[in-house]
Amino acid sequence: MQSRRNFLKTAALAAIGSGTVFNSMLAGNTPAPFNINRKSGAVPRMKLRFFPYELKLRHVFTVATYSRTTTPDVQVEIEYDGIIGYGEASMPPYLQKELGTMDSVMAFLKRAQEVLPRFTDPFQLEDILAYIDGMSESDAAAKTAIDIALHDLVGKLLGAPWYKIWGLDREKAPSTTFTIGIDTPEVVRQKTEECAGQFNILKVKLGSDHDKQLIETIRSVTDLPIAVDANQGWTDKQYALDMILWLKEKGIVMVEQPMPKTQLDDIAWVTQNSPLPIFADESVQRLKDVAGLKGVFTGINIKLMKCTGMREAWKMVTLARALDMKVMVGCMTETSCAISAAAQFSPAVDFADLDGSLLIANDRFKGMQVVKGKITLLDLPGIGVEKL
Amino acid sequence: MQSRRNFLKTAALAAIGSGTVFNSMLAGNTPAPFNINRKSGAVPRMKLRFFPYELKLRHVFTVATYSRTTTPDVQVEIEYDGIIGYGEASMPPYLQKELGTMDSVMAFLKRAQEVLPRFTDPFQLEDILAYIDGMSESDAAAKTAIDIALHDLVGKLLGAPWYKIWGLDREKAPSTTFTIGIDTPEVVRQKTEECAGQFNILKVKLGSDHDKQLIETIRSVTDLPIAVDANQGWTDKQYALDMILWLKEKGIVMVEQPMPKTQLDDIAWVTQNSPLPIFADESVQRLKDVAGLKGVFTGINIKLMKCTGMREAWKMVTLARALDMKVMVGCMTETSCAISAAAQFSPAVDFADLDGSLLIANDRFKGMQVVKGKITLLDLPGIGVEKL
Repeated sequence: MQSRRNFLKTAALAAIGSGTVFNSMLAGNTPAPFNINRKSGAVPRMKLRFFPYELKLRHVFTVATYSRTTTPDVQVEIEYDGIIGYGEASMPPYLQKELGTMDSVMAFLKRAQEVLPRFTDPFQLEDILAYIDGMSESDAAAKTAIDIALHDLVGKLLGAPWYKIWGLDREKAPSTTFTIGIDTPEVVRQKTEECAGQFNILKVKLGSDHDKQLIETIRSVTDLPIAVDANQGWTDKQYALDMILWLKEKGIVMVEQPMPKTQLDDIAWVTQNSPLPIFADESVQRLKDVAGLKGVFTGINIKLMKCTGMREAWKMVTLARALDMKVMVGCMTETSCAISAAAQFSPAVDFADLDGSLLIANDRFKGMQVVKGKITLLDLPGIGVEKL
Repeated sequence: MQSRRNFLKTAALAAIGSGTVFNSMLAGNTPAPFNINRKSGAVPRMKLRFFPYELKLRHVFTVATYSRTTTPDVQVEIEYDGIIGYGEASMPPYLQKELGTMDSVMAFLKRAQEVLPRFTDPFQLEDILAYIDGMSESDAAAKTAIDIALHDLVGKLLGAPWYKIWGLDREKAPSTTFTIGIDTPEVVRQKTEECAGQFNILKVKLGSDHDKQLIETIRSVTDLPIAVDANQGWTDKQYALDMILWLKEKGIVMVEQPMPKTQLDDIAWVTQNSPLPIFADESVQRLKDVAGLKGVFTGINIKLMKCTGMREAWKMVTLARALDMKVMVGCMTETSCAISAAAQFSPAVDFADLDGSLLIANDRFKGMQVVKGKITLLDLPGIGVEKL
């Protein structure tokens, strides 16, 4: 013990060191941001820009209550030291409550525009995004737009795409599903024929009185695996299970949200007895929702626009895996910007439903591609997109 | 619907694109690793080197059953394309069962030496580390050494330290605790006086019959906050709670592992009634242990040598936070290599106990520093160390 005093003196000396970081810290200065190649001598600041961008759908989108040919969308850019990160908020009208409206997104981004320049280091995603999230209770899509743009920016500053920063192998990205819409048997058959050669897995939305007919029609054309989204459509648990058992016989490989999100006990019973994995969609929005769904669903559907972006999405992947749950990634109608952002973690999921950019006619980006049905990530830094 | 066929043709064409990545994928080739500055034209491979390195302790380390002046340790390097990542395995004898022995670590690394060159891309941490983990049931410290070296390598390839890649602000790194060993009141007083000027929070190991005397002795010298590690030392839950209530009055701020890990129900009762946060230490080793401790402990102590390294540690941070649990980071006696690796995620923890490198006389690295008691990360890529 006699040398302890000397040891502590030495340790203190070593602690002071000679690097500038210590000198500046001892002088109470904030260290400069790390290793950024400056184009000028001034401390760079983040600048947020955004503008409304109406997505034009290639085909009329029909759900139970209405039809539409466009989706409201806002395109976002964050510029820092001459580098631009791209982001996007998509707000399908039927999800206004969760995601926001054009007006609410524009208002939120206007507030964020004033806040963002206060942060001098875009790498501090944890603090910046926590602050942005704390600005309101809702506004998921607007928060997502900022998150995606920041990830694109940081990835570009690191010179690497996010799949790589996350330690993933892009070769493991799965095939994406492609949705066959509800229509007359003749049209469904025709659509299926067109898709069967280009996709490796199809998706259908069930929950009507013609569910079995729709599946039979598709099966008259192809044996491809099919993912089913029941959209909360079945309200009786025994009926739901009977449907799932029938679907299993027909080569369906998974079912999303078989019953209303209010019927958690019924869903847990269905999942427990189901031979197919059951995924939460309407039942899950953000990270905080995931742990409570363990034992209720087999897995969760992660959508960037609902969960506030890539950082929270990646945490949801980690949490779900740690809880031994399956993971899928979904989307809205979006440009290749948000789609490519979501595709960055697709090598870590069990199912991917990333056909959103294929459904619009006015994409602004070249990004994730579907090659022989498989999600294929560009070898570009950040979210992996090029502006068209 | 009439334009659907044309749309699908267009989409397929767009999907094929013109980039080399698609051409090589369509030809069935594996794309080349991303964006590495090659020093030669050959495809680089990872080379693993390692050698035993006995850590010399500055002071005799005494636990209930024995004393020692050294810690067995293995130093690891992974070289790829001329860049070297450093790693380390530390195997304190009392943790041989969990961490491994010198022989078992050397044997495991010898096997890994043959495996590692098969992976062509060091960025694919998820797959590489899953494979390494699957090579045996145990060998935590050897796995950690590989994980740290790979993280150091990948961080250097990205040109950024891991706190930055993880989106953290190094200014938020906490103060580290420094342990005041159990000794005579006179020596404890002297040690406390020496430490009080250099550290902002002290740590004491309790669990003997002299617990209160030790605390009173320290309190006769300083009012600094104190963290307590009870090392499973209390077996009666009412006694444990009474001690914690007394400790709270004495300015103790947290308690690790108050009772044996077999007494989970008792610990849950103590935690529920405790005014201080209670952290799992012996009760937690890896990611799979965390979810089951929700409701039993307030938080978890993450130690790299136990959890197989930085990738799993970061997942444990994410999981614990998602479960609304607190997080601390701990260590073994280690060089600044493993300590600096652990310090990379310290901005995300509530408490840090990273005094391990201060306890050895033959450090091989300059890395994390303690400046005015606070963990201070070097502005260097990877795990942030320089070889001495």
